[in-house]
Amino acid sequence: MTGAPQLVSAACCFGGTQARYRHSSAVLGCEMVFSLFLPPRAADQSVPAAYWLSGLTCTDENFVQKAGAQRVAAELGIALVVPDTSPRGPGVADDPEGAYDFGLGAGFYLDASREPFARHYRMGDYVAAELPALIEAHFPIDGRRAVFGHSMGGHGALVTALRHPGRYRSVSAFAPITNPMACPWGEKAFTGYLGEDRALWRPWDACALIESAPERLPLLVDQGTADAFLETQLRPRALEAACRAAGHPLTLRLRQGYDHSYFFIASFIEDHLRFHARALAE
Amino acid sequence: MTGAPQLVSAACCFGGTQARYRHSSAVLGCEMVFSLFLPPRAADQSVPAAYWLSGLTCTDENFVQKAGAQRVAAELGIALVVPDTSPRGPGVADDPEGAYDFGLGAGFYLDASREPFARHYRMGDYVAAELPALIEAHFPIDGRRAVFGHSMGGHGALVTALRHPGRYRSVSAFAPITNPMACPWGEKAFTGYLGEDRALWRPWDACALIESAPERLPLLVDQGTADAFLETQLRPRALEAACRAAGHPLTLRLRQGYDHSYFFIASFIEDHLRFHARALAE
Repeated sequence: MTGAPQLVSAACCFGGTQARYRHSSAVLGCEMVFSLFLPPRAADQSVPAAYWLSGLTCTDENFVQKAGAQRVAAELGIALVVPDTSPRGPGVADDPEGAYDFGLGAGFYLDASREPFARHYRMGDYVAAELPALIEAHFPIDGRRAVFGHSMGGHGALVTALRHPGRYRSVSAFAPITNPMACPWGEKAFTGYLGEDRALWRPWDACALIESAPERLPLLVDQGTADAFLETQLRPRALEAACRAAGHPLTLRLRQGYDHSYFFIASFIEDHLRFHARALAE
Repeated sequence: MTGAPQLVSAACCFGGTQARYRHSSAVLGCEMVFSLFLPPRAADQSVPAAYWLSGLTCTDENFVQKAGAQRVAAELGIALVVPDTSPRGPGVADDPEGAYDFGLGAGFYLDASREPFARHYRMGDYVAAELPALIEAHFPIDGRRAVFGHSMGGHGALVTALRHPGRYRSVSAFAPITNPMACPWGEKAFTGYLGEDRALWRPWDACALIESAPERLPLLVDQGTADAFLETQLRPRALEAACRAAGHPLTLRLRQGYDHSYFFIASFIEDHLRFHARALAE
C-alpha cells in the first residue's frame, strides 16, 4: 500500500510552491522523497505535469535547485514532478563496491529481476504508475503527462514513454543514454539488475524499443558536443539511426560547446518546457 | 602580490561561459576561488560586471548553480563575479567551536582588526579593491560595477557600496542583514573580528553608514515576509528608518510568503539584474 505524501518542506517560488514530500512506496518497499513544483495556476484549477528524471548520483533536489525550470513552468501552468533516482534506505542493496554508476542513486528507471536488487529496484513501475497515481490523487494535477530527463534520466524518460503508449503526451531528453545495451554504464546496470541474458535487456533500451513503438510521440533531444560522455556512453547517433529505420520522428539538436552539466540543462530547459506545453495543451 | 587567475573549470552557459578561477590573494594571504560568468557579448567587447556576495555558509558556487542569473545576464550583457564568502585554507582561523555564523564561510565582508582573524579576514578590501583590479586586468570587463548579495552578502553589498563612493553604479540586496551592530549574527561577528568597542563597528554597518553617505546610489532591497530570520537578524525596517532619516532613496519590497532560500532569490533575480543594467548603461 502506498502511503499518502507527507510534507517535508515548502517554499514560495515564482508565485507557486516548490515542495518536497515523503511517502511509503509499496512498489519500491521503502520510503521515498519526491519534489513537486505547483505553478500559480494550480491554486484554482488542475494542471498537467511534467515528470523530470535525473541522472546518475542525483536526487530529487539537483534539478529543482539548478535547472531554473520553475520560472517557465509557472508561466506555462505546468507542475514539475521530480522523483529520486533510486530506492534508498535501510536494507536497499547498493553496488558491492559503492560505485556511482550502479545501486544507490543509479536505479536506471527499470524493474530489476535479479537479487538482491529485485526487492527494491523497481523504478520503472514506480515512475510510470505508482508515483503518477499518488500525485494525481493528492494534488491539483490532472492526467496530462509529459516526461523528460537527463543522462540516465534521459534514458528513463525515453523508455518510460516508449513502454507506456497513451500515458504521455510528449517526451524529451538532455544528453540521454540512448542505447544502454551498448554502453558501459548500461551494460553494468543491466547485467546487475537483469542478468546476463541480453534478450531481457531490450524492453529497457530506447533504441530497441523504438523499432516496434506503437505510438509516435513528439520526441526532442538536446546533446552538447563537448559532453565528455558523448561517444562512449550517450551515443545520440544510435537513437537517430533507430528513429530513421523505424520512421519515428526525432528532433535531435547538437549544441556546440556544451558539456554534461546543469549549465547545459539550464540553458535549454525553457525550450523543452515550451515543447511539452504545446503537446500538453492539445 | 596577487597571482594571475588560473582556470579551474569552465562550461558553456546561455551562449556565454560560466567558469571558476583560483588565484593567490595578497590581501587575504591565501588561495581564493571565484566564479565568473561572461555573457556572449564579452566575446567582442568589454562589459560591465555585477558582483554577487553570498550569505553565511555559501561558497562562490551556490549563486552560480541556484539563482538562474546567467540567462538574464547573458541577455543584458553583464558579467557576474562571485567571490567566496571568506578566506579559506591551511592556517586560516575558524570559529573556535566551528559554528556556521563566524569564521570559515562567514567573513562578513569586513577587514578584521583582531587576532587571529586580522591576518586573513580582510574581505572588505578583497571584494572592493583586489578582486575588481584582478578581474579588470585579466578579463574583458570594464570599470562599470554593480554590487548585490544575499543575507550576510546583502550586508556586504550595502556596506561595500556605501564605503566606496564612486566605485559602484548601483546596489541591491536580497534579505540583507541591514544593521549588524544590532543583531546576533552581526554582534558575534563584529566582536570577533573587530573587538568590543562598538565605535569601531560603525564603518561596517549599513544603517550607520547611511547617516553620512556622500553618495545616493540606486538602492533596491527585496525581503520575504516568511523569512525565518526577518525579525531577529535582518531588520529591513531599520534600514528603512535610516534611509528616511538621511533622505536616502530606497526601494524596499516585502515579498509575501517568500522565505530566505534561493527559491526566493531565483524568483526575483531578473528584477535585480534589470535594475542594475539600467544603472550600468547610464
